[in-house]
Amino acid sequence: MDAFSYRCPTRIIFGVGQIVALSIEVPAAARILMVHGGGSIMRNGVYDQVQSALSRHQVVEFDGIRPNPEYEDCREALEVLKESSCDFILAVGGGSVLDAAKFIAAAACYDGEEPWDLIEDRNLVTEALPVGAVLTLPATGSEMNGNTVISRAAITQKRALCHPALYPVFSILDPATTTTLSPRQSANGIIDAFVHVCEQYVTYPAEAPLQDRQAEAILLTLIEEGPKVMADPENLTARANVMWAATNALNGLIGVGVPGDWASHQIGHELTALYGIDHAQSLAVAMPGVWEVCREAKQAKLAQYAWRVWGLHGLGSEVAARQAVARTEDFFRSLGVGTTLAEYDIPVEAADLVAQHLSQRGVVLGEHQSITPEVVAEILRLRA
Amino acid sequence: MDAFSYRCPTRIIFGVGQIVALSIEVPAAARILMVHGGGSIMRNGVYDQVQSALSRHQVVEFDGIRPNPEYEDCREALEVLKESSCDFILAVGGGSVLDAAKFIAAAACYDGEEPWDLIEDRNLVTEALPVGAVLTLPATGSEMNGNTVISRAAITQKRALCHPALYPVFSILDPATTTTLSPRQSANGIIDAFVHVCEQYVTYPAEAPLQDRQAEAILLTLIEEGPKVMADPENLTARANVMWAATNALNGLIGVGVPGDWASHQIGHELTALYGIDHAQSLAVAMPGVWEVCREAKQAKLAQYAWRVWGLHGLGSEVAARQAVARTEDFFRSLGVGTTLAEYDIPVEAADLVAQHLSQRGVVLGEHQSITPEVVAEILRLRA
Repeated sequence: MDAFSYRCPTRIIFGVGQIVALSIEVPAAARILMVHGGGSIMRNGVYDQVQSALSRHQVVEFDGIRPNPEYEDCREALEVLKESSCDFILAVGGGSVLDAAKFIAAAACYDGEEPWDLIEDRNLVTEALPVGAVLTLPATGSEMNGNTVISRAAITQKRALCHPALYPVFSILDPATTTTLSPRQSANGIIDAFVHVCEQYVTYPAEAPLQDRQAEAILLTLIEEGPKVMADPENLTARANVMWAATNALNGLIGVGVPGDWASHQIGHELTALYGIDHAQSLAVAMPGVWEVCREAKQAKLAQYAWRVWGLHGLGSEVAARQAVARTEDFFRSLGVGTTLAEYDIPVEAADLVAQHLSQRGVVLGEHQSITPEVVAEILRLRA
Repeated sequence: MDAFSYRCPTRIIFGVGQIVALSIEVPAAARILMVHGGGSIMRNGVYDQVQSALSRHQVVEFDGIRPNPEYEDCREALEVLKESSCDFILAVGGGSVLDAAKFIAAAACYDGEEPWDLIEDRNLVTEALPVGAVLTLPATGSEMNGNTVISRAAITQKRALCHPALYPVFSILDPATTTTLSPRQSANGIIDAFVHVCEQYVTYPAEAPLQDRQAEAILLTLIEEGPKVMADPENLTARANVMWAATNALNGLIGVGVPGDWASHQIGHELTALYGIDHAQSLAVAMPGVWEVCREAKQAKLAQYAWRVWGLHGLGSEVAARQAVARTEDFFRSLGVGTTLAEYDIPVEAADLVAQHLSQRGVVLGEHQSITPEVVAEILRLRA
């Protein structure tokens, strides 16, 4: 286990009916910019619950946040925030809305002309306005971490920013808000959380048995509870377990002191930036390819994962590692999510285009920093 | 899973050589009261490392904290703190030193004559001075929670106080500081952490599969890594894994949304207050008794624990539950810790005395609030 520093100051308020807690969690004197997507929360009652809880607060709304939050939308929200002198941002929605809120919160404290600078150089982030969240889609883990991912269509980029100033002050997780998610949203969320765990777990042995088992705990929960929410969207118990698993997948705890891969995410971000596929779809395509190409380097952990998570005791390491890749892809497909480029009408030329993009930024990926742009192209050609 | 609210703002700084971080973690202008036990840290180099890291800080020392921190010692430290106008408390040592520091921190902000009031009524705690820690004994989890346990010999009491103001600002965990622990200290720490997990896990099924598996992750780690540190005290990898497991055992995460038992702790506190045995010894005596007497009520979880943690697949629930109790006691004994009253020269009359004590405070224990003082007496008679 390597040395690490860990701090996660976010308060999690979890349970059915907890949105009312907004009335006390947001300071009474706050001028709130409420950001949301203007869609599902208007139909499923969440918007009304939030309005009711904040009836004594000053609230300004910005409802233009789309999935894979777009830089220009964040800039627009920032203008609204400044015009109305808001000093608190409330995100109501999924990870995209939360990520947008975090970016706006940091941008509001940045003096430069172009907030994109913060993406290019995280050292420019010094502080951020306080952000609170009402989460309605378990997936990204953004509710309990200091990460944000922002897209910028004009330059075909989708980029992450991680900074301690970006932890939400609080996040309210009411599993009842997730029963109206579409099958596609539910499946995407399960896969996103699953891959977050894998990025921190399927690397190489690091003599960190607790982190390994904590990672396996989350994977097993997603494998058991995920299909239950797909089969019965109203199963509140399963919804609650998936929601809490997704939060634990990326609150940083399973990643302390161990290597991280994140190649699938970086490749996935490029696919989304270029072709507009959902984040989870991009991961379901990329990760089996990363594992296949890096199967020897990852063999010890892939085999451990096969034995402990898929119960494939008795298989030798090499066979177990192969099975681990196949079982994972099967699991994604069982949730109704395609795992090949063709299923999303993405041509095989994507392989070279993504490689070229990463090459331009000088990025080399993976826990061994061995996944060069050429290897990325090889990975994606396997996923045609 | 029940509704819950969770927040743990402590920064953990983990790794060999991390004590130097004190120089930046403690504010430069702080007037530090450094509390410790005056014993092992003087011999194992920790004292010197702390002094060196704080060479530019103002530090006043109080070295009179004993195991099972005594209220009168805390009062004495409080006088020193007030005389020297300290505004930051640094605990250097194990859970006892940390618990004392937390209590002193709260007492320093209390206007009443008798800080024991805070133990009797936690609502009297409003704030506390900031506390930082250098942990040298993995056991209590105090480094990442808002709990303190204080003893008061004059009234033969040992009592817990839990409050959000008591979270350390930071805790430095350097596993190298634990290689000089005695076998008794090492074994005690492993058992303390193990029982912390059991108190939150061996209750009744609560449809919280993630918390269950996170609990099992910690237990499995302690079972695998604990014997390694007993066999080879200098095994830094195992020391690190035990240390991190002990922190995770009581940072609150595995206990969210699920019932807690804590009967073994309350019974154990009485045994320590009355007979002065080590905290972990008291738990090693009490918990097998609690499980034996509550075996039917706990059968589902005891069996799950037997199957998943001890690998006793194939056994029926009832047999598995019996085996779970036996295996656990065997594990404690394998670490060299006695599990009966007789081994600590405690007479069987302790059973009635402890019951009487709890009865005076009107306390009923267990996740079903079914362990009356009469049941406590029955439990302890089994442990003669």
